[in-house]
Amino acid sequence: MKYAFAKRVRHLQSSAVRDLLKIINKQNVISFAGGLPDDRLFPLDGVQAAFEKTFQSGKKALQYQETEGYAPLRELLCDRMKVKGINSYSPEDVLITTGSQQAIDLFSRVFFNPGDVILTEDPTYLAALQVFESYEATVIPVLSDENGMLMDDLEQKLKQYRPKCIYVVPTFSNPAGKVWTIEKRSAVLELAKKYHVVIFEDDPYGDIQFNEDEVYTPIAALDNGDYVLYTSTFSKTVVPALRTGWIAGPHQIIRMMAQAKQANDLHSNSLSQMALYHLCLDFDLDQHIQMLRKEYHDRMKTMLAELERSGLPGLSYVVPKGGMFFWLEVHESLDTTKLLQEAVKEGVAYVPGAPFFVGRSKQNTLRLNYTHSTPDKIEEGMQMLVKVFSNAMEKGKVY
Amino acid sequence: MKYAFAKRVRHLQSSAVRDLLKIINKQNVISFAGGLPDDRLFPLDGVQAAFEKTFQSGKKALQYQETEGYAPLRELLCDRMKVKGINSYSPEDVLITTGSQQAIDLFSRVFFNPGDVILTEDPTYLAALQVFESYEATVIPVLSDENGMLMDDLEQKLKQYRPKCIYVVPTFSNPAGKVWTIEKRSAVLELAKKYHVVIFEDDPYGDIQFNEDEVYTPIAALDNGDYVLYTSTFSKTVVPALRTGWIAGPHQIIRMMAQAKQANDLHSNSLSQMALYHLCLDFDLDQHIQMLRKEYHDRMKTMLAELERSGLPGLSYVVPKGGMFFWLEVHESLDTTKLLQEAVKEGVAYVPGAPFFVGRSKQNTLRLNYTHSTPDKIEEGMQMLVKVFSNAMEKGKVY
Repeated sequence: MKYAFAKRVRHLQSSAVRDLLKIINKQNVISFAGGLPDDRLFPLDGVQAAFEKTFQSGKKALQYQETEGYAPLRELLCDRMKVKGINSYSPEDVLITTGSQQAIDLFSRVFFNPGDVILTEDPTYLAALQVFESYEATVIPVLSDENGMLMDDLEQKLKQYRPKCIYVVPTFSNPAGKVWTIEKRSAVLELAKKYHVVIFEDDPYGDIQFNEDEVYTPIAALDNGDYVLYTSTFSKTVVPALRTGWIAGPHQIIRMMAQAKQANDLHSNSLSQMALYHLCLDFDLDQHIQMLRKEYHDRMKTMLAELERSGLPGLSYVVPKGGMFFWLEVHESLDTTKLLQEAVKEGVAYVPGAPFFVGRSKQNTLRLNYTHSTPDKIEEGMQMLVKVFSNAMEKGKVY
Repeated sequence: MKYAFAKRVRHLQSSAVRDLLKIINKQNVISFAGGLPDDRLFPLDGVQAAFEKTFQSGKKALQYQETEGYAPLRELLCDRMKVKGINSYSPEDVLITTGSQQAIDLFSRVFFNPGDVILTEDPTYLAALQVFESYEATVIPVLSDENGMLMDDLEQKLKQYRPKCIYVVPTFSNPAGKVWTIEKRSAVLELAKKYHVVIFEDDPYGDIQFNEDEVYTPIAALDNGDYVLYTSTFSKTVVPALRTGWIAGPHQIIRMMAQAKQANDLHSNSLSQMALYHLCLDFDLDQHIQMLRKEYHDRMKTMLAELERSGLPGLSYVVPKGGMFFWLEVHESLDTTKLLQEAVKEGVAYVPGAPFFVGRSKQNTLRLNYTHSTPDKIEEGMQMLVKVFSNAMEKGKVY
């Protein structure tokens, strides 16, 4: 039978990343593809103890809960955001979501009519693009340099397109691994205020910071609570399986998103919310994050060393200051989408850069994750990858 | 600041049920309002043991998982559905969702363009109505008697409105507590086939069946897998906090919904999915369900006894054969929406009937839950409620 789907499904494609995950999980492939933390570093004992504590609070804890999320956890998140300088949100301005992905989705659901415009970096987080497009929003890319968006281009596009929102990942962006300067952060907020546009600040990676001495102030910390929505997640610092993220923002918007969430799924898994609350109280999460920073920093350096000695002509990249990804540009003759199959055959996987672009795709780009693999696997996988790219160039294959 | 929300938020209102929950949780009120199971009956030890087992499987279990859900759980759900006669789905036709609410939401997301028509019973599950309306679908009510929809009216409306879907809760419906006859179940499927329309069969309560000897065949069991989507949940039989439901249906539709779910939240809490899998293996869930059936049956009878001796003029109801609700019609002079505040002041809460209606609301209807309160609280609360209604009538208050 042929089913009559809604028009919006045109924009729903299984993400390259997720579909790859499926294939790769079943094969013996070194994967630099997914945005996965390393499960060997998961605080299993801490999580297990937190669940035991939650079960001790009795059966009532397992009942239906408020859509907004477990109140003590929201309070605790406000305290944790304050440490980052974000002071303008109270627990009523926080919504617990099923990962920060759901925060992007619910925001889009309450904000976008078909044809409404959102401005983004380019390239940017591809699963956010998929959400915006699934609500038939028009995504317009803003030009950037290595320090963030170009404010002239941003202002011109604010005037031209009258967007509803600016979506940014200013700290260790996905996929480009950039960090915005404080000047750019202030400037984007001033422009948002001038043109009455909200900023959606997506910060899943902010905690994975390599240089202890630098300060990357969230844009939300510069705002008085009117213009910025700030989202983050426990998926990268604790474990993904609990699917617990949050969004803080202007109360009117959070309230509307909570109503959308009621329709979407009533509330997120509350046992996990309580467990995360206990984890934050009883387990030294900050020390755990320190360990992750060091470990992931070492792995980044391992990958960097392989890149440096690769001798690949036309290779360029920015050395990440945190987060989970290297963003590479390889020789312009190489099409990373077409080469992926050969790479997987060789035993290594990555994400081709093309789907991260809003405007014209650069086919010779790719994203490499360095957090999921151990250093020896990183070396091994990088050597495979360099071989695939070298071979393709030697054979003069212009894909 | 004033924010420019999407047009679809017009249809997003906080549900009466959920907002009540919030108030009532903070007060000393006997609540017949929410669709809550009794937390005193939760299988806490079983759930805790299942989590311990899950943690034993190691850190890998806490990594990101497939959007479709934990494969062994989907297999197990197919086996459990087979016991109900539902044979046409394989694990690839099953999607694990954050409660069955998300199944309704994702289905709507992939199916409805603004203005597309869905046919429903009237009254029907109000949170489903909210979802359909939030996607700007047009909901058209079909006339029913105590045995299900009237097939003449259904066929006339299939011809007239060319709907995309028929939404039904054929076993212990919410709010009306009805059970469709097998003849009606077959007939609706035949009409769906004749007019090429899918049936969305919502079955959250099917397991809470009071009469062991009767068989209520799901509509999905009569289909070959082309026309029926079947959704259910662990929220009523295990615990709501795990927020784990599922939907089975034609593979094309399930596949499209999985893509929508990727955008929505990547995947549902996978720790809970694994724990539920272990629970089903190691804990006698069916015996637990037997216990719930008996206990909830007793409570229903307690509420019934109070209704029988209430002496309220103009009272009518159908005695539920299962599920969680009594649906009452009271004297036509009473407006249950306006009387709710007085009831809460007296110490008892219910859900007014009006929001469950698609067509013209009957203001003198209400839904009472009998599963959340112990029998003595049911007696106490019912006496308060009867007093509120009696007083209103005596004072000649025509609300």
